[in-house]
Amino acid sequence: MLHFTFLGTSSGVPTLTRNVSGLAIRNSKNKDWILVDAGEGTQHRIQQAKLSLQNLIAICISHVHGDHCYGLVGLLASAGMNARTAPLTIIAPKEIQQWIAVTAQLTDLHLPYPLHFIEVNEATQIQQLTDNLSIQAHPLSHRVPSFAFSMIVQYTQKKLDTQALIQLGVPKGKAWGDLQQGLDIQFNGQTLKAADFTQLQIQRAHAIVGGDNDCPELLAQACEDAQLLIHESTYTQAALDKVGSGPMHSSAKMVAEFAQQQGLSNLILTHFSPRHQDNAGQQAIAEEVQAFYQGNFYLAHDFDQFSLDETGQLSKIDKS
Amino acid sequence: MLHFTFLGTSSGVPTLTRNVSGLAIRNSKNKDWILVDAGEGTQHRIQQAKLSLQNLIAICISHVHGDHCYGLVGLLASAGMNARTAPLTIIAPKEIQQWIAVTAQLTDLHLPYPLHFIEVNEATQIQQLTDNLSIQAHPLSHRVPSFAFSMIVQYTQKKLDTQALIQLGVPKGKAWGDLQQGLDIQFNGQTLKAADFTQLQIQRAHAIVGGDNDCPELLAQACEDAQLLIHESTYTQAALDKVGSGPMHSSAKMVAEFAQQQGLSNLILTHFSPRHQDNAGQQAIAEEVQAFYQGNFYLAHDFDQFSLDETGQLSKIDKS
Repeated sequence: MLHFTFLGTSSGVPTLTRNVSGLAIRNSKNKDWILVDAGEGTQHRIQQAKLSLQNLIAICISHVHGDHCYGLVGLLASAGMNARTAPLTIIAPKEIQQWIAVTAQLTDLHLPYPLHFIEVNEATQIQQLTDNLSIQAHPLSHRVPSFAFSMIVQYTQKKLDTQALIQLGVPKGKAWGDLQQGLDIQFNGQTLKAADFTQLQIQRAHAIVGGDNDCPELLAQACEDAQLLIHESTYTQAALDKVGSGPMHSSAKMVAEFAQQQGLSNLILTHFSPRHQDNAGQQAIAEEVQAFYQGNFYLAHDFDQFSLDETGQLSKIDKS
Repeated sequence: MLHFTFLGTSSGVPTLTRNVSGLAIRNSKNKDWILVDAGEGTQHRIQQAKLSLQNLIAICISHVHGDHCYGLVGLLASAGMNARTAPLTIIAPKEIQQWIAVTAQLTDLHLPYPLHFIEVNEATQIQQLTDNLSIQAHPLSHRVPSFAFSMIVQYTQKKLDTQALIQLGVPKGKAWGDLQQGLDIQFNGQTLKAADFTQLQIQRAHAIVGGDNDCPELLAQACEDAQLLIHESTYTQAALDKVGSGPMHSSAKMVAEFAQQQGLSNLILTHFSPRHQDNAGQQAIAEEVQAFYQGNFYLAHDFDQFSLDETGQLSKIDKS
């Protein structure tokens, strides 16, 4: 139901193998997708991942630091040069709206499509982006206001009680079709009420995508309903202890402990410091997660793809 | 004397094979280099080209369009995160200075090194960046104020007239050394004056790097002294005729005719529209140049490297 493509998994600066933050989240039932964060070079990654800027319906920016937003204006400009006309929703701190406006003015940028700006702050309400897709923001703790986003896709289906109809001998075809569509029917002199033979079935997937954050516990309430948490893990605990709390990031241990305590089934870690990006560094992060978390987890690499289905099953997609 | 690395050669938008504008120009006698234009993703290209942000002494921005400057703030931020402390000169339209200031304020960016900003306009004087490297701006014609930059590297050497000294029987060693250093010497009862046995020799390379421009003739005077012109050639003439003059770009024909008329020995074309980036498109551009220009020319690709020596010889560097 939700499909994820990691466009950047490096913290602070791009490296030769990882770009700064960007995550594409697609509703797998259609082509709609949402971008969470847009570090510099995100539009290049979008091209490489064969995603279309025409199908992008919203961009969420978690916070104003450059490694999460400096790719935004180039991406907007390119969508314009590619003749986008559909409105685009931007959910971001108010500074981002100012930055886009000032940048457009100073750099002669004229977008041929409207931006629908929604300020994210502690009071931001849940946003219903399409019939099936909604977003909710959750405040985090960082050097500047930072937010996580709940991505919820939900479909309601009317399911016909075919067992009961077969037992009654109601023939397939028009009768079944009418009931499915909510019409009562006559059968053997009886009225069969559609409401008695149909049930509403809800398919739902809920993932939370965090921005920079040094306090995973802030997501406790939001995570009660979530099947997946995607969270930064900039450092190992040892590295964080050395760096100190100034940068206000999480260690793998902090996120793993929180996920374990929360009983979360799925966890994807991202936003790794360049020092943890080689094999040894990734191994150290993975071992730290394993020591504190018994659930299903992945460390994201650029271009990794995952799907989350309505049963809460998270799978890594084999690209080969 | 001057070494060029093309970091982006696409016009307007990045493509899968070419980034938007960026050109690294190095003084081949040391590690100093200058960046001309910084489209989004230029810092990624700089990493890939193994150039160090620590040795970057100046950034020139030709004009304010995003494909020439949206990579600037990310690059400045990364240089800061890589602990740069040396001042950095920025030569750019005044809007760029405002954009950096507003961006820094809105995105919590604090650079640990000073920026020395030089506004480029029609009155900008020649800038002596180091003892040997100077830059001069030349106004062009585009939808916004746009500039070309003369890059001039110059070394003055005192050369000893060794032929004359050998004929006189002056032995090598201290006597030659003293003369070279400008000291008169005594030899066989005579005073030999250093000025009579030394000559100043000037080694000089001069390349002009243009921004977006629909009127190459504006560079006529500047090109009289140049050994190389690097200029945009966004379209073939046929494509430009179709697109119309609105975008205010040059065709290959326009630049080639200008270079021929000017008697320029070397020409590198860049900033190609995505429509001209495949083999057929590049072939069409090349044929158009050949039809109107008899000098030495190249169509730049990303990561192409060239060197220009003091005799005006331009060579493409074989990277294999």
